[in-house]
Amino acid sequence: MYMKNHWYVAAWSDELGSEPLALTMLDEDVLLYRKRDGTPVALENRCAHRRVPLSKGRIVGDEIQCGYHGLVYDSAGACVKVPGQARAPRGTRVKSYPVIERHAFVYVWMGDPEDADEASIIDFPRLDHPEWGVTKLHLHIEANYLLLIDNLLDLSHVAYLHDTTIGNAPVAEDAEVIHERHGDTVRVTREMVDVPAARTYAEFGSHPGNFDRWQLAEWRPPAYFLINNGSEGTGARKPGRYRVFDQGEWGFQVYHGITPETRRSTHQFWAIAYELSAVPKESRPEFHRQCHQVIREDVAIYEAQQRSLDSDPEGATPENVNERVRIRFDEGLLQAREIIARMSKDEAAEKKGEPISG
Amino acid sequence: MYMKNHWYVAAWSDELGSEPLALTMLDEDVLLYRKRDGTPVALENRCAHRRVPLSKGRIVGDEIQCGYHGLVYDSAGACVKVPGQARAPRGTRVKSYPVIERHAFVYVWMGDPEDADEASIIDFPRLDHPEWGVTKLHLHIEANYLLLIDNLLDLSHVAYLHDTTIGNAPVAEDAEVIHERHGDTVRVTREMVDVPAARTYAEFGSHPGNFDRWQLAEWRPPAYFLINNGSEGTGARKPGRYRVFDQGEWGFQVYHGITPETRRSTHQFWAIAYELSAVPKESRPEFHRQCHQVIREDVAIYEAQQRSLDSDPEGATPENVNERVRIRFDEGLLQAREIIARMSKDEAAEKKGEPISG
Amino acid sequence: MYMKNHWYVAAWSDELGSEPLALTMLDEDVLLYRKRDGTPVALENRCAHRRVPLSKGRIVGDEIQCGYHGLVYDSAGACVKVPGQARAPRGTRVKSYPVIERHAFVYVWMGDPEDADEASIIDFPRLDHPEWGVTKLHLHIEANYLLLIDNLLDLSHVAYLHDTTIGNAPVAEDAEVIHERHGDTVRVTREMVDVPAARTYAEFGSHPGNFDRWQLAEWRPPAYFLINNGSEGTGARKPGRYRVFDQGEWGFQVYHGITPETRRSTHQFWAIAYELSAVPKESRPEFHRQCHQVIREDVAIYEAQQRSLDSDPEGATPENVNERVRIRFDEGLLQAREIIARMSKDEAAEKKGEPISG
Repeated sequence: MYMKNHWYVAAWSDELGSEPLALTMLDEDVLLYRKRDGTPVALENRCAHRRVPLSKGRIVGDEIQCGYHGLVYDSAGACVKVPGQARAPRGTRVKSYPVIERHAFVYVWMGDPEDADEASIIDFPRLDHPEWGVTKLHLHIEANYLLLIDNLLDLSHVAYLHDTTIGNAPVAEDAEVIHERHGDTVRVTREMVDVPAARTYAEFGSHPGNFDRWQLAEWRPPAYFLINNGSEGTGARKPGRYRVFDQGEWGFQVYHGITPETRRSTHQFWAIAYELSAVPKESRPEFHRQCHQVIREDVAIYEAQQRSLDSDPEGATPENVNERVRIRFDEGLLQAREIIARMSKDEAAEKKGEPISG
Repeated sequence: MYMKNHWYVAAWSDELGSEPLALTMLDEDVLLYRKRDGTPVALENRCAHRRVPLSKGRIVGDEIQCGYHGLVYDSAGACVKVPGQARAPRGTRVKSYPVIERHAFVYVWMGDPEDADEASIIDFPRLDHPEWGVTKLHLHIEANYLLLIDNLLDLSHVAYLHDTTIGNAPVAEDAEVIHERHGDTVRVTREMVDVPAARTYAEFGSHPGNFDRWQLAEWRPPAYFLINNGSEGTGARKPGRYRVFDQGEWGFQVYHGITPETRRSTHQFWAIAYELSAVPKESRPEFHRQCHQVIREDVAIYEAQQRSLDSDPEGATPENVNERVRIRFDEGLLQAREIIARMSKDEAAEKKGEPISG
Repeated sequence: MYMKNHWYVAAWSDELGSEPLALTMLDEDVLLYRKRDGTPVALENRCAHRRVPLSKGRIVGDEIQCGYHGLVYDSAGACVKVPGQARAPRGTRVKSYPVIERHAFVYVWMGDPEDADEASIIDFPRLDHPEWGVTKLHLHIEANYLLLIDNLLDLSHVAYLHDTTIGNAPVAEDAEVIHERHGDTVRVTREMVDVPAARTYAEFGSHPGNFDRWQLAEWRPPAYFLINNGSEGTGARKPGRYRVFDQGEWGFQVYHGITPETRRSTHQFWAIAYELSAVPKESRPEFHRQCHQVIREDVAIYEAQQRSLDSDPEGATPENVNERVRIRFDEGLLQAREIIARMSKDEAAEKKGEPISG
């Protein structure tokens, strides 16, 4: 069901301190902690002996001790001590996961450890860049992660769902929409020329009246998004030349690391990043508030949609909901769904030793 | 499982204002809103596109716009606009329900729209009559609707469950009980002669000491009740002459519109109506309080009974609980169960094109 | 699934007063009340008529009257009155359970009433002895009862789980552990010689520095524990001579009556008993607080373990969790599991009329 051979975000760096941290990822219970040198460790969060969560225990040096009967595991998952006996029964261990920390994210590899490839981690340097401001959340969503991907690959919804902050009707009705696919990356660009600024742009941006505005949403498997929101004076340049990291005169970037928890719940690591010079210090509280309002509105929709699908009399599910009515703006998300289907199939085939489609 | 070819109460008229209203009826998610002229509209509460509840959207003129991607549906359920494209994909629509508003109730027809017959709506003129006072609730009950019907067709329970307000022992022990059936209407009349007044009657009625009292409970399919509670001085008339709309010297009427939500939950639209002259203005707060206490005691029993049936080791369920011990006072509710069984069977047969029993 | 032919604790004596008391035991809904002479009664908690819990009704003399339609049952479960008719339908009754009150516990026999044997009740005289102080709780645990038995037959966990009160490392690491079996009784004795006193012992006991300490945990089927915690000056006597009721210079006893509620929940009747002279009056609030902290830590572990087992990817369950990694300290609890398995098998065989293993 899940694409396992990928890095998934397990935590923001600053969520992981001196105490063990527990979360469920792709239906697996994972324990995170830091060694004395700060390196993160990821282990199965069930003691081999009685299945109590190791996260209820304590970190001892670079090792973790179960809080029930005191069994100690090293950072590779091997049981190195059983109180009251000379050594642990042979082979007593918990599963260990490859883990990497980069640019504010702690990533865990959920597939075969031998396939873990550090080079496949996406670079998000602006999440911890000194000249960029960031507001961020670790959200727990009661919805399948596919519904989040759908949401972010059709930003026409900004016109309706976020109409008191970053959206107004032109975002849906007057946008030129370009769908691109580069390998397994899907990019949807929405360009609006000479349109009135929605509230957030009018309050914080460079043009309170009409302007040109663009949104570039780039999805990379399994579930990463970088969304670039930019704007500038009308006529300043021709359409079609916008790029992911270019905000023009004023804008901000949105980052999403999306990690399935279960089939019906998701961890969403969400951040807004902006050049410090773009939002003066005194404006930041209100700018952050508007950004948080936007993501809370999205969360409410993800969860309402999931609840609706839970009891759909026509059998719609998170997996097939897109196979019904198709509209023009669905194109990007249908491509992502196609890529996910192909990658999932390949992963299943690889497990069985069959040739893969690629 | 449900009898669908009927009008069911979806809301009190004053529950439906300028915002969309959502509820589940007979396992279907229904959206209600009013057009500009006040006429109520009832549609399936799932956008055809992504299954998000349309009740999260907004009313635009006489139409409803989805709050996610802005699709617009007219009051007959047809999708008339998809933002960003010239027209909606052919056949995009949501289910529409016949709906009628009358005497404080908004009714929705849950069966085949072609069978919707306005003439079959029951008349409850006292729910909005200028000379009658009303206190009412829309209750959400965690119990199967059949348990409510059982409750109301054996009012001997008033003696025990409501013994600090409208009940005392004679209601169960000294009543003459008459069970009548008129077509598919079941009426149970309980007459008590020369009995002491229960608290509510003693405090608000015409006879603080002994009096004659009667309860007439009339059930009409699928799930409507009109209960007449009347009283007068002992010896004023002979038994057997009481009628549904006659309260004698003092009394009140109780109305129930009962709408299954799911197999295990129910909407109960409950009202007490009384002649304004029967309860002086200054007495109404306490009279209403006692009425509300009665219905809350009933709710507690419905839900306790349902929880007990949820885990019944002998396999009793809301559907078969009456097939066990039978007592004399069960007669009315057993007739109602028989009518429900026959009507359900006929409806199922009609769907298959078979001849119906009637 | 359950061993039914046993006495189980249904309540502390002082939980059962002048009102009906309801609880679920071994998946059966039980009603308790006292007759006028104080004798406890235990009946099935579902009225034969409509399955409403009889505990919602009222005690009338030595009988119980249903709060819905007023049916009256005597203390043997026979329906003796149906309002509105001369007599109850023949055979109308609810199940009745043998019940005995002794030493602060109200016991109910959950098996065949003919097998109920008062002599098999265990004697716990210190629970209501005038020279002993007691602090006690009726805990509702969201975990299978077997997890509680495991906990109490391996007290090495005291070293880790209770390390801010009664535990420190020597309890696990420096203890001599003796496993004994006497018929179907399992006793695990842990003796520590010349070890530092854990906090509770240092604060309330006779030796703030090093001392000898012992724990004797005795389990008797189906689910009773008497645990003796004792201590005295190092060198005062030889190991191997400790007995269940001997606390040496300072100590206390712990009692557990464990009653399965469902497969996933348990009633735990827990008590600490101590000689009044061992804990001066002014010290008791803090001594009780530390004892309560210990049991709350245990409850948190039972429930965390159950939740972990609920979703165990390797299929571990409360029933089989011990069949995985085995450590030296598991010996006592593995014996208890073996006895439970054999007794359950015998009980099942007896039901079918087969020869039993004993």
